[in-house]
Amino acid sequence: MSAQAAQRMGLRVVILDSDPDCPAAQVTSQLIPDNWNSPAGTCELAKQASTLTLENEWANPQNLLLARELGAVVLPSPETLSIIGDKLAQRHVFCGHGLPSPRFQALNSWDDLDSIAASWNSTVVLKSRHGGYDGYGVKIVRAPIDKRELPSSPASEWFAEEYVPFDRELAVMVSKNSAGETSVYPVVESRQTTDGHRCDVVIAPAPGLSPEQSVEAQRISLSAVDAVGGIGLFGIELFDANGKFIVNEIAPRPHNSGHYTMDGARTSQFEQHIRAVRNLAPGPTDLLATVVVMANLLAPRDGDIDLQKSLVSVLRVDPSVHVHWYGKQSLRNGRKMGHLNLLGKDFESTLARAVGARDAFWKG
Amino acid sequence: MSAQAAQRMGLRVVILDSDPDCPAAQVTSQLIPDNWNSPAGTCELAKQASTLTLENEWANPQNLLLARELGAVVLPSPETLSIIGDKLAQRHVFCGHGLPSPRFQALNSWDDLDSIAASWNSTVVLKSRHGGYDGYGVKIVRAPIDKRELPSSPASEWFAEEYVPFDRELAVMVSKNSAGETSVYPVVESRQTTDGHRCDVVIAPAPGLSPEQSVEAQRISLSAVDAVGGIGLFGIELFDANGKFIVNEIAPRPHNSGHYTMDGARTSQFEQHIRAVRNLAPGPTDLLATVVVMANLLAPRDGDIDLQKSLVSVLRVDPSVHVHWYGKQSLRNGRKMGHLNLLGKDFESTLARAVGARDAFWKG
Repeated sequence: MSAQAAQRMGLRVVILDSDPDCPAAQVTSQLIPDNWNSPAGTCELAKQASTLTLENEWANPQNLLLARELGAVVLPSPETLSIIGDKLAQRHVFCGHGLPSPRFQALNSWDDLDSIAASWNSTVVLKSRHGGYDGYGVKIVRAPIDKRELPSSPASEWFAEEYVPFDRELAVMVSKNSAGETSVYPVVESRQTTDGHRCDVVIAPAPGLSPEQSVEAQRISLSAVDAVGGIGLFGIELFDANGKFIVNEIAPRPHNSGHYTMDGARTSQFEQHIRAVRNLAPGPTDLLATVVVMANLLAPRDGDIDLQKSLVSVLRVDPSVHVHWYGKQSLRNGRKMGHLNLLGKDFESTLARAVGARDAFWKG
Repeated sequence: MSAQAAQRMGLRVVILDSDPDCPAAQVTSQLIPDNWNSPAGTCELAKQASTLTLENEWANPQNLLLARELGAVVLPSPETLSIIGDKLAQRHVFCGHGLPSPRFQALNSWDDLDSIAASWNSTVVLKSRHGGYDGYGVKIVRAPIDKRELPSSPASEWFAEEYVPFDRELAVMVSKNSAGETSVYPVVESRQTTDGHRCDVVIAPAPGLSPEQSVEAQRISLSAVDAVGGIGLFGIELFDANGKFIVNEIAPRPHNSGHYTMDGARTSQFEQHIRAVRNLAPGPTDLLATVVVMANLLAPRDGDIDLQKSLVSVLRVDPSVHVHWYGKQSLRNGRKMGHLNLLGKDFESTLARAVGARDAFWKG
């Protein structure tokens, strides 16, 4: 989706991916068929492209430094990605910049946990420092600690965080270019699936926030981008704990909670991403309707789908729906296959329409 | 742009074009490197794709019939394209369906012209039956006819049309799917370059139309699509002659006068095109602002351009502009290289912003 936004503005796009049939390869003509984390592939990309940007936060920063030495602009920067790629380093930086954070502690040994749980007088969230997403790499433990429930990897690969009882999850998209120009999107509410692990729907703007609360959440989000020295587009996830906002984490890329912007905001997050990394002025972030709802299409099963039947079905129920289907090769239970965007006048009715449309899509 | 709209919905796109670096090939991964008018290429396309559609009206209908025999859905149909591909046949059909048309007459010989001009008591517009666009294939002659000014091709390749003094050009985009579901976009005004030949800017909605006039122009446009048995997306060009509308011609594809929909309407003309040919319900056609202006980026010279510099420049002047640059290989004086879309509150100020943004783009 970033590639398409770049192409709209006439930019040539080269993809680094080992799968020649990956979604990005389907919408571009130039593919370097190598792992996105390979040093050779990254260097080849730097030879073919003047600007490198990323769709995930896990690329090895060492490779990106090599690319930069070859003369490519790499944004977000390897330095920013080094911080964000390690969730413990993220916490240190946020905490150091005075951003509202839960208590947290590095772990030298699993034996540290008992005293941590006792001193916090709280349930403890174990977070994997690297590579976690969508609930992967998160474990909740309670005192007394049952050693059999602990991860098998070394304790130093994890850190402990105070469990914060929160009412809901919010998110804000922020962009910043090299000239320091920023844009901030409205605060949205992100609702998770019942297992709590995956983004299910996003409501823009977040219902029930006062204007002052919105400004505060946006201010925190901008500060989080500054804290990591971020240039590019960032998704900041916040916990809303009784009106108090706590930074959960930051993603250095277009984010699921910003997909609603593709049809629902004056500038899509993907165009904003490209504008930021190419040092272009950011576009307006206003919504195009009173309420915009994004509903993820999480595969309800493994297997295949008759896409045409699903498209017919969902657009018969609600022709105003915009369907985004990513072209992944097969359904896998719970996998994000696409999303729906709907514009509306109030959040209850628009959310109800979104859920109805999604049901129709999967029924086919 | 149609390819990208299809891809957004998860459809795989195959392009038939002899230029492996043509704009469409840059945004797709599957190219059949053959002329878009080659029988073999068209048949190969029909083997690889379930639905064939077109970006111009000049593909040989015989090839498309072959593709249909191979099992592909071809929309707009070869029959529709046969009518539209011959502007004289278009006129016959429109006239036969009672649509408001200028007087016209087939030509057997150039000698017919004198009596035609005398009997109409009017300037005569000579139109090439096949292949004209953007002012190519149009010649204005006056009695007494100066034979040296006539085209060198046979008179039967042309036809004569009464010159209609008109105040401005209007256009309406209409879609229709195989189930008969239609959508109609707002009536827009299309302003031509000072030489009168190329679309310069489009203003949506057309300023100064009464609601009754809009409904009438939309009704005529829908009828024009019905007249040619059209399934797909169509751009209908109308002359506004003192509030009376006359059908100029119909284009069986996304149209320059509909480019404003990409950022300015609830459903872009390209998504509507794909929905129509895939027999999906049409999306809403409402504007996303009071006024939307599209300004074409017609190359002011031959040569090259520093795209990055132009992007920086135009977005510095007005960051709300959406830039579309088609990725054509080089500037050629007058060539359509891209377009700008702007949303606004009234047409004068939005048009002024569009012209200012375009100047900034070309200045770089």
